[in-house]
Amino acid sequence: MLHARCKADVLKTLIDATSTLVDEVKVHVAAEGLSLKAVDPAHVAMVELTLRGAAFQEYKADAMEMGVDLEKFKEVLKLASGDDEVEMDFDPAGHRLVMKIGNVTRRMSLVDTSGMNDPKVPKLDLPVHVTIAPGELERGIRASEAIADHVALIANKDTFELLAEGDTDQVHLKLDKSMLAELKASESAKSLFSLDYFANMVKAAKGSPGIHLNLGNDYPVKIEFDLAGGNGHVTYLLAPRIES
Amino acid sequence: MLHARCKADVLKTLIDATSTLVDEVKVHVAAEGLSLKAVDPAHVAMVELTLRGAAFQEYKADAMEMGVDLEKFKEVLKLASGDDEVEMDFDPAGHRLVMKIGNVTRRMSLVDTSGMNDPKVPKLDLPVHVTIAPGELERGIRASEAIADHVALIANKDTFELLAEGDTDQVHLKLDKSMLAELKASESAKSLFSLDYFANMVKAAKGSPGIHLNLGNDYPVKIEFDLAGGNGHVTYLLAPRIES
Amino acid sequence: MLHARCKADVLKTLIDATSTLVDEVKVHVAAEGLSLKAVDPAHVAMVELTLRGAAFQEYKADAMEMGVDLEKFKEVLKLASGDDEVEMDFDPAGHRLVMKIGNVTRRMSLVDTSGMNDPKVPKLDLPVHVTIAPGELERGIRASEAIADHVALIANKDTFELLAEGDTDQVHLKLDKSMLAELKASESAKSLFSLDYFANMVKAAKGSPGIHLNLGNDYPVKIEFDLAGGNGHVTYLLAPRIES
Repeated sequence: MLHARCKADVLKTLIDATSTLVDEVKVHVAAEGLSLKAVDPAHVAMVELTLRGAAFQEYKADAMEMGVDLEKFKEVLKLASGDDEVEMDFDPAGHRLVMKIGNVTRRMSLVDTSGMNDPKVPKLDLPVHVTIAPGELERGIRASEAIADHVALIANKDTFELLAEGDTDQVHLKLDKSMLAELKASESAKSLFSLDYFANMVKAAKGSPGIHLNLGNDYPVKIEFDLAGGNGHVTYLLAPRIES
Repeated sequence: MLHARCKADVLKTLIDATSTLVDEVKVHVAAEGLSLKAVDPAHVAMVELTLRGAAFQEYKADAMEMGVDLEKFKEVLKLASGDDEVEMDFDPAGHRLVMKIGNVTRRMSLVDTSGMNDPKVPKLDLPVHVTIAPGELERGIRASEAIADHVALIANKDTFELLAEGDTDQVHLKLDKSMLAELKASESAKSLFSLDYFANMVKAAKGSPGIHLNLGNDYPVKIEFDLAGGNGHVTYLLAPRIES
Repeated sequence: MLHARCKADVLKTLIDATSTLVDEVKVHVAAEGLSLKAVDPAHVAMVELTLRGAAFQEYKADAMEMGVDLEKFKEVLKLASGDDEVEMDFDPAGHRLVMKIGNVTRRMSLVDTSGMNDPKVPKLDLPVHVTIAPGELERGIRASEAIADHVALIANKDTFELLAEGDTDQVHLKLDKSMLAELKASESAKSLFSLDYFANMVKAAKGSPGIHLNLGNDYPVKIEFDLAGGNGHVTYLLAPRIES
C-alpha cells in the first residue's frame, strides 16, 4: 500500500538520479520511505538511493515493491512543473500506479520485479574525502568532454584535481584545500574514470549544495549527495578504468 | 481591393488555426472582413473562420478572393514580433499580396483559387455544450499523447471527461460542472476522436479564454473559440472515430 | 610571448567574425594587439581584423604568430559566460595556448602556420558609403532567405536598397537618407552578392552600433564594423556575383 503526495521536483530528482544507470528499477516501499539499488547493464556503476517520508507532503505506506519504467515515469512528470503537486496511489488490482497531476489522473502500469535482484553494495574504506560544489566540477567536465573519454580524479592532503588528456590538448581543474568545502586525505589518491558515467552522476547532483567524493588509488569513486532538502540521499559507486 | 494594417499576432492566430488542416486556403475578402472555410485532405475535419475588419488597425476592402500558401505566409510573419504592425495590400497587376513589416516590403505571390471550392458546413444540433480553459485540456492531451492515438470526450449533466486508453495505461481528465465555465447537457454523450487532430485544434485556441465544445453520442465535435479579442471566430468540426 | 586577460565576449566576437569564412587562421600577435587576415576557400570573401591591447584587461606580448583552430577555440569559450574572464598564455614548449576560465586550465594545441600565407588586401576606391543599424539589415536578409540565393545592394545619393528576387516573390528593403546614419554617394551603385556570405557577415556585426557598407557598380562590397567598444575593427570584402 502506498499513498503519497509531493512536489513534482522531488520525484524528478529521484528519477533523474536513477535513470542515468538503468531503464527500469525496483523501488522498495516502506513505512519510512522509498529506497532502491541498481547496477547498470555494463556493471560499471551502482546507485543506492533513499527518500524519506518526510520529503513528501503526505506519505503513508506498507512494505511492498514496485517495478518502475523510468522513462515512462519521466514523461508523466513532464505534465507537472516543478512546484506542481503530484499524488501517487498504488492500485493493487491493476498493478498500476495512479498518479494525479492537477485534474489529470494517469494510471501507469508497473513492471514485473520477479527478475530484478538487489545488488550487493560493497563496503569500501576510501582514504580521501572531498566535498565540492557541483558547478565547479561541471565546468571541468564540460571542458574535458571536448578532448577525452576519461578523466583522472587526483587528491592529496592539499589539493583536488580533475585531469583530462587528449592527444595534444589537456584540461586541468585544480582546487586548493581553501577552495573546497572539505578535503581530508590520509594518503594521496589517483584513479581514472569513464567521463560519460562521471558526467551523468555529477549532473544528477545539480541541485544539491555539495557533492562528496570518496577516492582511493586505482579504486572506485564513491559519489554522494543529498536530495529533497536532506530528506533523500544518493550514493553512486563508479569503477575505475585501468590506465593503459 | 484590400488594404489592411494590424498587429502581426492577429494574422498569426488566423494562419495557425487554418494551417493545422490545410496547406493552402481561399480567403474571402469583403467590406466587413475576412473569412474562410476549408476541409483537410483526409476529410476528417473542417475549419470555418471569420475575422472582422474591427480586428485591424486599418481595414478597407472590396469583395474578392485570395489563394494563400499558409506555410509561406507563416514564414513572412516570422519577420515580425507579435506586437509589430503588418500592412497588407493586394496588387492586382502581379496577383500578389504586398506586405510591409518595418521597412521591408515583401511581395508574396498568391495561389490560383480556381480549383478551390468552399466546403458545405453541415448543420449539427448537438445536445452537450461545454466551455473549458484551453490549458486544462492541454494537460490532458499531453498526458494522452504518450499512450494513445485517440481520446474519448464524455459528458453528462454533471461532468466532462477526456479519456485515453493505452494497452496497459490510462489517462483520465475529469471535471465537475463547478470546475467548468459552462456545462449544459440535455442528454449524455460520448465520442472518440483522433488525438492528433484534436490536439492541434486545442493548440490553435491557446490564447483564447475559453474553448466551447459541442458534443453528441458518436457524433462530430464542434469546437469554437474567439480570436483577436472577440473580433474573430473559429469553428472546427471533427468527425468521430468508431470504436473497434 | 603572449599574456592576456579579457571578458570572454571579446574573444567570442573575434572568433565569430573569422569563423564565418575559415576554419583555421594565423593570428599575428604584437605588442599593440592581435590581427589577422584570411580568405575563404572559395576565394569569394576576405576578412581583416584587428584587436588592440586596450580591448583586454591585461595584455603583454612580443611579436609572434599563432595558428588557431577556430571551432576548437569556440568550444573552449563556451565554458565561459560572456562576462567571465578568460586568461591566455602562450606556452612555447608545447606550442600550446594555455587558457584559464575560472579554475579550469585548458591547454589547447595550436595549428602549424607554415602553409598559411597572409592574403593581399586589394585597395578599392568605392564611391558609395552607407552606415546602417545591423538589425535593419538583418530583417531584410531574413526575409530574402526564404525566396532567393542572392541579394542586390543598391544606392544613390538619396536611398539605400536591398533587393531579392525569387521566381514570383520579391523582398525589398528601402531606406531613405533620413533613416540612415550616413549616406554618401558620388555616383549610384548596384551590385549582386551571395546572400549566404552577406548574411553571415552582417550576423557577425550584431553587437556593433553600425555597419559601414562601401559600394560600387558591379564591384565588391567592403563591410566594416567595430568590435570590443571600438578597440577592435573588422573589414570584410565580398566579391560581386554577375547577374545572369
